[in-house]
Amino acid sequence: MEKHDNFFIKKQNKKWVLDIIKNKGPISRADVSKITNMSPTSISRIVQELDYEGFVKETDLISSGVGRKANLLNICDDAIYTIGVDLTEKSIKIVIINYFDEIMYSKTIPKDKDEYFMKTLQNISDLIDNALRYKNISKLKVVGVGISLPGFVDYESGLVSLSIQLGWEDVPVAKIMQDYLGIPILVDNDLKMKAMAEFLRGSATNSSSLVLLGIASGIGTSIITNGEFYRGENNIAGEISHTIVEINGDLCKCGKFGCLATVVTEGAILRQANKVKEVSNIKEIIDYYYDGETWAINIIERVTTYIATTISNIFYLYNPKVLVLSGFILEDFELIQQLIEKKYKMYLSEPFKSQAKIVYTQLGESGNSFGAAVQAQKVLFNFD
Amino acid sequence: MEKHDNFFIKKQNKKWVLDIIKNKGPISRADVSKITNMSPTSISRIVQELDYEGFVKETDLISSGVGRKANLLNICDDAIYTIGVDLTEKSIKIVIINYFDEIMYSKTIPKDKDEYFMKTLQNISDLIDNALRYKNISKLKVVGVGISLPGFVDYESGLVSLSIQLGWEDVPVAKIMQDYLGIPILVDNDLKMKAMAEFLRGSATNSSSLVLLGIASGIGTSIITNGEFYRGENNIAGEISHTIVEINGDLCKCGKFGCLATVVTEGAILRQANKVKEVSNIKEIIDYYYDGETWAINIIERVTTYIATTISNIFYLYNPKVLVLSGFILEDFELIQQLIEKKYKMYLSEPFKSQAKIVYTQLGESGNSFGAAVQAQKVLFNFD
Repeated sequence: MEKHDNFFIKKQNKKWVLDIIKNKGPISRADVSKITNMSPTSISRIVQELDYEGFVKETDLISSGVGRKANLLNICDDAIYTIGVDLTEKSIKIVIINYFDEIMYSKTIPKDKDEYFMKTLQNISDLIDNALRYKNISKLKVVGVGISLPGFVDYESGLVSLSIQLGWEDVPVAKIMQDYLGIPILVDNDLKMKAMAEFLRGSATNSSSLVLLGIASGIGTSIITNGEFYRGENNIAGEISHTIVEINGDLCKCGKFGCLATVVTEGAILRQANKVKEVSNIKEIIDYYYDGETWAINIIERVTTYIATTISNIFYLYNPKVLVLSGFILEDFELIQQLIEKKYKMYLSEPFKSQAKIVYTQLGESGNSFGAAVQAQKVLFNFD
Repeated sequence: MEKHDNFFIKKQNKKWVLDIIKNKGPISRADVSKITNMSPTSISRIVQELDYEGFVKETDLISSGVGRKANLLNICDDAIYTIGVDLTEKSIKIVIINYFDEIMYSKTIPKDKDEYFMKTLQNISDLIDNALRYKNISKLKVVGVGISLPGFVDYESGLVSLSIQLGWEDVPVAKIMQDYLGIPILVDNDLKMKAMAEFLRGSATNSSSLVLLGIASGIGTSIITNGEFYRGENNIAGEISHTIVEINGDLCKCGKFGCLATVVTEGAILRQANKVKEVSNIKEIIDYYYDGETWAINIIERVTTYIATTISNIFYLYNPKVLVLSGFILEDFELIQQLIEKKYKMYLSEPFKSQAKIVYTQLGESGNSFGAAVQAQKVLFNFD
């Protein structure tokens, strides 16, 4: 528990007023006063501070309605900046967002698959330095850097304990990047960053909770409830990939038989298909499906059935307001989407059936970098 | 967001001091001051208020160590009382706990299976009135009543939307009981109450998170993270019973094939067994297992394999610090426990394997009523 003294209140109330102006501006002082139930005098004092510090400005707009006319307040979009990084097996992407969450800069460079981690982190640092110089943004205005990457992350310390995709084990990413840049660093799993992006600015902005299910080369879920991540004890909750769905199924790389990963991931689907026909991607299998090839029909039907039962299971296990479907297997093929949308309700009964809502991502692949930036702003920005 | 004014701080700090004295007493004013980082003057003022209101008292014990000797503070165990009710298909149990969470009174009466809900609620109300009269406790000192029952509960309003076990649909339990008793009422699902009891005063008191898995006539889970329930959007998260574990399995009452409920519940196990031999309970099957009967061995092996994979799935899905096993199928048979404990690690790989910890309930069946009481105290007691 935090000590509740006057300094604590002051900080909380200031942040509250700023959030209201950010989310509802242009807005009058009187309306801020109404929403917060704080006195006009208090609001004026707080706004004056925020104005002096460069967060808030008066606009040319005038309040409508009864009462004395007054200029409306709005946020200064250049008050602070946040940086988001999306690190994958093959690329590094950085974005800079302003205080309006607008993307001011975006750049992607390729990454060598077997690159030593110090090289990768040095490249990220150089990318950020160059971008800030190019955009003429002072480091003093940068609240922090959010880094999105695949793997298990100790969220508190920013240590990547294991990333099979990157080939990293026990890499203290936050510490190294902080030394390079001198800016606060936040590191988290890519699916979490993507979920937060969809939650705050994407397909689930009107929901208080969501689960994001990603299916591509791997499969995973990320859970947000009451606006916060459900992380579990070690930030590894939602690892649905290695739940057992077929007790006598195929052996998984993790050592167990019948994990979900052995059924619905790209690799698993291609392995099955290649028992009959040489194919190199999902698109080819779908073409064979439309040609009426028995094996292709059976594979697609089986995969979509398992995805439909997985969707159902997620509603029963996590009871989210909305389930966001993400990843190329779920987003790129109309056939798969049609079959899933037809099947998943078969596997729901009340009270889940009438409440279940599924949507697709709005931000797509850019969700990782954007989510990393907004999450960094959310966590790292305060008035300390 | 709540308005952070002086009244808010005052209330928060007072509750904080009271919690410290409750959990760490007997304790000196100086130590409370150290823990809270509040001034000795502030602590003295708050303690004086708490003393005046009957929550806190000075003991005969004297502080040790350096500095001026002073009397230690402790909680008054009769400052407030809370009532817990455990409602099942066949019985009503009530307990009264004092502010030390000690059970001052406990009584169980049978309940007619097909009883009309108004009769049941009237009986609960009478039980409570009689208990308070018998123990000579004023209603003014009763913070609230927590009611534990099986089924789906709208936690905010205390409406039971569906309880198959009780045969209730859309019963506004909190409203009716509040009218009867004039005391604040809290209603929640029985597995949640049991989980909170184990979390606060049972087998998981040193954990920050837990999942409780109950297997008996039904199966369900309850999730606590950072000391709070993970409820999901409609308070029905954790409904693992109707997740699909065998895509071509038996038809479940819910209308789907292969729900976990069709494999590991008492009814499902007995249905299987009765295909070969007439048995009426799990104990008999276990006796046949020890006699070397093939069918009994196959049933027990299959059930424990599915329970072991369920345990594994729970660690991957919710990543709790500890998993609490509850219900007579998990708690009453050494054979089942031995088999589960042998098998479940087969279905875990790192980083889950080395962290997974399972325990059994400490409070057993009394967890429901006790949990309802402590949860009611936790939620309903404040200084408003």
